[in-house]
Amino acid sequence: MTLNGESLVGASAFKGGAALFRAIDPSTGREIEPAFGAATLTDAERACVLAEQAFDSYRDTTPEQRAAFLEQVAQNILDLGPALIERAMQESGLPQARLEGERGRTVGQLRLFAKVVRDGRWLGAALDSALPQRTPPRPDLRLRKIGLGPVVVFGASNFPLAFSVAGGDTASALAAGCPVIVKAHGAHPGTSELVGKALQAAVASCGMHEGVFSMLHGDGRTIGQALAAHPAVKAVGFTGSRAGGMALVRAAAQRPEPIPVYAEMSSINPMFMLPEALSQGAAKIGADFVDSLTLGSGQFCTNPGLVIALEGPALETFIDAAATALQGKTGATMLTPGIHAAFNGGVDKLSKEAGVKLVARGQYGATVCAGQPALFVTDAATFLANPALEDEIFGAASLVVRCADVAQFREIAEHLDGQLTATMFVSEGDRDLARSLLPALERKAGRVLVNGFPTGVEVSHAMVHGGPFPATSDSRGTSVGASAIDRFLRPVSYQDMPAWLLPQALQDDNPLNLWRVRDGELSQA
Amino acid sequence: MTLNGESLVGASAFKGGAALFRAIDPSTGREIEPAFGAATLTDAERACVLAEQAFDSYRDTTPEQRAAFLEQVAQNILDLGPALIERAMQESGLPQARLEGERGRTVGQLRLFAKVVRDGRWLGAALDSALPQRTPPRPDLRLRKIGLGPVVVFGASNFPLAFSVAGGDTASALAAGCPVIVKAHGAHPGTSELVGKALQAAVASCGMHEGVFSMLHGDGRTIGQALAAHPAVKAVGFTGSRAGGMALVRAAAQRPEPIPVYAEMSSINPMFMLPEALSQGAAKIGADFVDSLTLGSGQFCTNPGLVIALEGPALETFIDAAATALQGKTGATMLTPGIHAAFNGGVDKLSKEAGVKLVARGQYGATVCAGQPALFVTDAATFLANPALEDEIFGAASLVVRCADVAQFREIAEHLDGQLTATMFVSEGDRDLARSLLPALERKAGRVLVNGFPTGVEVSHAMVHGGPFPATSDSRGTSVGASAIDRFLRPVSYQDMPAWLLPQALQDDNPLNLWRVRDGELSQA
Repeated sequence: MTLNGESLVGASAFKGGAALFRAIDPSTGREIEPAFGAATLTDAERACVLAEQAFDSYRDTTPEQRAAFLEQVAQNILDLGPALIERAMQESGLPQARLEGERGRTVGQLRLFAKVVRDGRWLGAALDSALPQRTPPRPDLRLRKIGLGPVVVFGASNFPLAFSVAGGDTASALAAGCPVIVKAHGAHPGTSELVGKALQAAVASCGMHEGVFSMLHGDGRTIGQALAAHPAVKAVGFTGSRAGGMALVRAAAQRPEPIPVYAEMSSINPMFMLPEALSQGAAKIGADFVDSLTLGSGQFCTNPGLVIALEGPALETFIDAAATALQGKTGATMLTPGIHAAFNGGVDKLSKEAGVKLVARGQYGATVCAGQPALFVTDAATFLANPALEDEIFGAASLVVRCADVAQFREIAEHLDGQLTATMFVSEGDRDLARSLLPALERKAGRVLVNGFPTGVEVSHAMVHGGPFPATSDSRGTSVGASAIDRFLRPVSYQDMPAWLLPQALQDDNPLNLWRVRDGELSQA
Repeated sequence: MTLNGESLVGASAFKGGAALFRAIDPSTGREIEPAFGAATLTDAERACVLAEQAFDSYRDTTPEQRAAFLEQVAQNILDLGPALIERAMQESGLPQARLEGERGRTVGQLRLFAKVVRDGRWLGAALDSALPQRTPPRPDLRLRKIGLGPVVVFGASNFPLAFSVAGGDTASALAAGCPVIVKAHGAHPGTSELVGKALQAAVASCGMHEGVFSMLHGDGRTIGQALAAHPAVKAVGFTGSRAGGMALVRAAAQRPEPIPVYAEMSSINPMFMLPEALSQGAAKIGADFVDSLTLGSGQFCTNPGLVIALEGPALETFIDAAATALQGKTGATMLTPGIHAAFNGGVDKLSKEAGVKLVARGQYGATVCAGQPALFVTDAATFLANPALEDEIFGAASLVVRCADVAQFREIAEHLDGQLTATMFVSEGDRDLARSLLPALERKAGRVLVNGFPTGVEVSHAMVHGGPFPATSDSRGTSVGASAIDRFLRPVSYQDMPAWLLPQALQDDNPLNLWRVRDGELSQA
């Protein structure tokens, strides 16, 4: 498929008239053809109006129709073949195998939401029988959830497929019955155009209203803010920097009608190495830790940026092993020149902080945007006194905190900001300490791991990729896994509604074969 | 029980030192003894710190312990006996039968949440089995929901029991495992003290951490804002005016860590009288409508403040019947002099709006705060052109909108702000129109009724007392019914956690006998 540098509004494709820009190949720093046209505010307005027009018919589709549509999107993405992977490699610097894996994840995610839609538990259907003899009489009440309305999705740079145009936010919003408008990420506009057109084609072939999907190129501060401010838009999904996310959160709160913003922003993913676990496996844990730290050049939201451990010989073994492993790692191309510069700036700043010592760096990489991994060490007192040491450095950099005693474990756990993940390495002898740390970790993180590494986020039913602020702007949601659909729903109750007017999900004979709460009891009857 | 004018922080009771104030009997306009002491900012700080300290142990209680606690609160409220009803009558001007009914509702609500807690569906438990043979291996993942943390609840004036100290917000937050700090409503401080002490006693007798519950008297702008701004506080529940709710919403969004605010604010609860339904029953519907309008002096969030109907003889019959019925109603004492003054101001303002005609008033009431019911009429063009006609007048005032054709029904439905409820009166012949209106009503309201009146909000599983802005600040929640618990929860995922560290809800043998999603399938195994 030829790239035309186009935005998509409903069924149309056009080169936006606001400005021209090109993607940059981060491995060379050079621009790639073709030129993309940034969309205008008029284009944004059209996309929002179309989405609003599409909402009623789209949310009225049957679960089967909506599921088939999501599956068609998945198939159309697969049908793009190697062209998609090649363009994504050029634009992101990510290797082929990673992007093929990510495509599998993207397609799997769409198919999971197709299953979720068919299953129908997301509807939260509940029926309370009328009690006409009671004083006062109880009416017949039935509840189901419906979509919030049009959703604006901001793609992430670090998952050009799985968290971008047809990624998790889009899939879950579409599953919820919400039309989606994507603000394409400027780092991978060609990948976005390819996937956007695959999605657009599915809208057409499945007979959906064209307004179900639009995708605009352009700047987040202009087009992005305009989309998030539009009265037709009822929610925002975002993955990216804390500054970018908070700009959207603040803007949404200032709208005449405030709307939810699900911004997944910043996390340093602390790992607590409990004493017995560390003394039993320091060298191996140190080496494995570096594998997790440097995976994908460290460009994961769940990258382990902080290690907390008791000072002593085991920790020194861990640090030595990690340093040795790190020195064997060569810096890989980062996603964009901007991310690369920010990584270097973050490493530079951290190396100058009082009480922080550089332990090791990886090897220089061959490309202009290669991020050279870095490992630092400090002590608990220094860490607790300097909030800057909690700032996320996006990339393969991590800080080891030496604690004088386990009381400092607890102090650090309580001191930490909200996180996507928190990890403990534990052995039998660490039971009491693990139990005493767990409540704090539950309060601070969306996912708590034991004896593993936080990179690798399974797309399944029990996954939470979320967490307290500033990991996300709304800890009530997850942006990965089946529960992501819940973010875009609201409940509606129907009182004494005649059978001919009731939504299918709430009809007496349960034609969708849903699990429903009937007079308080869950059943599929 | 003697009233001492006290606030409660944890296990302590004390007269706050910020200022003295007394409740006012709205039937006489006179102050009632004793004097209450407004809490200081230091008191607020102590309550927040205690709540934070209580959170881990409280959320770790078993479902059975927490349910028994809620039931004890209910019992303690009943044990207050007639003293509670008498004080509430004095402070609210509401009649005895109404307050006895409301006490039943309050107690029923606490018991419903005890059932909800025991049932455990709110935990949203999900388990994904490890797939160690897969490439890459899938870890063992388990999800449950936990409480957000301490919740601040602002009591409402119009339900001094059911939406106040131990009302719906408090019951659902406690059920979710969240400590609660109540900012007592200034209109019923004595009722608040009685119920607060009943709740405090249950905390003690059930062996809960004292920080599980505190209650402070004082001004919303000082104490209320300080509570909502405290870093330990993780959510706010509010029922009241749009101005008060929005002040909290804006303040919460400006915190370093934004938190959810569930503010139930303003709704005019439109009723669409479809042509055949109206022509078949205009006179009866008109009279019944006035019963709903004037119930409780119109002081319900779900009061029917707007009627939309086709012009013609049936509508004139409806208006005549409503006018006659209204003229037979005597104004009853409103909750506070302030509410009474605002009602009079609203009625006065509406009567002066261009194109709006007063149809009828009820009789003067005997007390100083009696609200004299009022019915107005206008036409659709006037209504659509003047946003002020959508302003809620809290009390027994309603506006009938004459439409020239059914297209104006749709136009008005689309034009309306978000609502708690929307109602249609329909007959067989109205099917097509009803079907075409329903999607707009679902988008605009939390509850859609057919052939009934919106006053009367059942506490059950399928109830939604919520809706799009400005009915509430967050349409994803309901403040009445079993689902209200969901507002105060967030999901946490546990990865590869050893059995000895897993929460009970997620253990292999399902010791709590929960409905859980196992590898995507719901079961109680």
